[in-house]
Amino acid sequence: MHTISDFQNVVESELSKQEFVVEPQGLYQPIEYVMSMGGKRIRPTLCLAGCYLFIDDISKAIKPSLALEIFHNFTLLHDDIMDNADVRRNQPTVHKKWDNNTAILSGDAMLIKAYQYAAGIDEKYLKDVLNLFSQTAIEVCEGQQYDMEFELRDDVTVDDYLTMIRLKTAVLLAASLKTGAIIGGADTKNADLLYDFGVNIGLAFQLQDDFLDVYGDIKTFGKAIGGDIVANKKTFLLINALQMASGTVKSDLQTWIDAKDFNAEEKIEAVRNIYNTLKIDTLAKEKMNFYFNQAISALNQINGRESMKEELQKFAFQLIERSR
Amino acid sequence: MHTISDFQNVVESELSKQEFVVEPQGLYQPIEYVMSMGGKRIRPTLCLAGCYLFIDDISKAIKPSLALEIFHNFTLLHDDIMDNADVRRNQPTVHKKWDNNTAILSGDAMLIKAYQYAAGIDEKYLKDVLNLFSQTAIEVCEGQQYDMEFELRDDVTVDDYLTMIRLKTAVLLAASLKTGAIIGGADTKNADLLYDFGVNIGLAFQLQDDFLDVYGDIKTFGKAIGGDIVANKKTFLLINALQMASGTVKSDLQTWIDAKDFNAEEKIEAVRNIYNTLKIDTLAKEKMNFYFNQAISALNQINGRESMKEELQKFAFQLIERSR
Repeated sequence: MHTISDFQNVVESELSKQEFVVEPQGLYQPIEYVMSMGGKRIRPTLCLAGCYLFIDDISKAIKPSLALEIFHNFTLLHDDIMDNADVRRNQPTVHKKWDNNTAILSGDAMLIKAYQYAAGIDEKYLKDVLNLFSQTAIEVCEGQQYDMEFELRDDVTVDDYLTMIRLKTAVLLAASLKTGAIIGGADTKNADLLYDFGVNIGLAFQLQDDFLDVYGDIKTFGKAIGGDIVANKKTFLLINALQMASGTVKSDLQTWIDAKDFNAEEKIEAVRNIYNTLKIDTLAKEKMNFYFNQAISALNQINGRESMKEELQKFAFQLIERSR
Repeated sequence: MHTISDFQNVVESELSKQEFVVEPQGLYQPIEYVMSMGGKRIRPTLCLAGCYLFIDDISKAIKPSLALEIFHNFTLLHDDIMDNADVRRNQPTVHKKWDNNTAILSGDAMLIKAYQYAAGIDEKYLKDVLNLFSQTAIEVCEGQQYDMEFELRDDVTVDDYLTMIRLKTAVLLAASLKTGAIIGGADTKNADLLYDFGVNIGLAFQLQDDFLDVYGDIKTFGKAIGGDIVANKKTFLLINALQMASGTVKSDLQTWIDAKDFNAEEKIEAVRNIYNTLKIDTLAKEKMNFYFNQAISALNQINGRESMKEELQKFAFQLIERSR
């Protein structure tokens, strides 16, 4: 058992053994439903990988790794209510299939379940793992709050945005890796380097997601191109464009943002051209590369199993690959 | 520092020292708002009392006691969304003052905060306290789920109902006491007896609440009489009445339940008379007394500070006093 893909298989196999449905089924069936929707299981996989960097026996990391996956799915469940999203992974969201109250309460139960799984470890690591878990969980809530607020604000800076994606996306990837490291007995220095690797990969990944919405190939991106542009989503690209544009470019951009009635393809094409004019594509790529290099640099400094470091580097490249 | 009321003052004083509001304020202001709404702080007070039964120094129990109060207020916040309640303690509920999304997300953050407070104890008690906390938290969710389901079901039995109120109300009181006992170093037997005391007091208290809705004095009950009857709420009284009634009494009761257009005072009076005919009042009092006596019996068996046992017995009488 040596590759990231092996750990992903372990996660799937362990998840399939969990009995999420007990009485009252009305509370637990939605949990089983969201946990069975699939997904890449990145967070628990990274947790096992983080453990295997330092020790051979990853069995102690399995429960906390599932905690991270349950927590992640809890955030999707509640975010989908807040975003009024009808579909997740090609299936109806819980609040559509059941109702809002079910989605709220089953989500609450999932968060508690996540803590039960996180606490399923040796007592000597319990305090560290739980502190990290709670700190990360509250940061993810803060990230979601900023994300919602930003959609109503006109003064979001690039730094604000980077703070938001760090909280909403990056810290959970980082905490997943670090949880594994703690259980693997890593010292603070190595555990923190692994956390840095995770944060920076997370930031690079989110910036890439912003980039691909505009410049991606629908075949490899996996979702429709231009969705962020159509919705005026305050991405790294739009925030930079708003800050850098001047003269007619600025007024053109503002006209497209304010337009109520427009042809989507036309708007996407026009805004993409404005981004090109302002060289926002280059800027985004540079920022992505900056975080990616920071990640690799942190990884290289870790004193851990070399074969697993190579695996994590390969994983990082794969995560970013779509844009290369 | 010897009385329940002293502990209540400690709780208020400690709560007032907490800084709930940091950035982003949009996430944390609703938490400060609900935590400042007041209330009797029964759960943290019982936690400190539970600790003081066994040791003099209650300082170690303060953080977990606040965790129980934060958790309780989290459940009120999310329940108010689910019940579409506009007012709580004479103030607008969070989802009315802000909006549903804020209430969902701030509630999530409160649940995580509660865990952070619960984890603020000596490592030697961490596992026991957190296991109890999570087990209780998930049971409270189950209780809320049953409560919501019961309103849509026609086949709720008395046992179903007792299970629901045990989960929704009683276990958190019990866990509050037991958390204090664990931190006070009580052995399993004494900690479990204290838990039994809490569960039974909780059951007696909820049955009394059902009873007072029909038979209470508005001056001492603190809320309007007959609200449960008007809303056809499936209380201990109604469930028993539906089960015991026959002939014209049954059809009369069903007519009032099915009535869409009625005078509230008239319905309350009619249903109360049906309860009287069926001697539901006596039945409810007997059941209340049964649980109350179970509680006192458990308390008496505890090997702990006698003066605090007396205080807890007084507290139990005060909780039930309104009906005596």
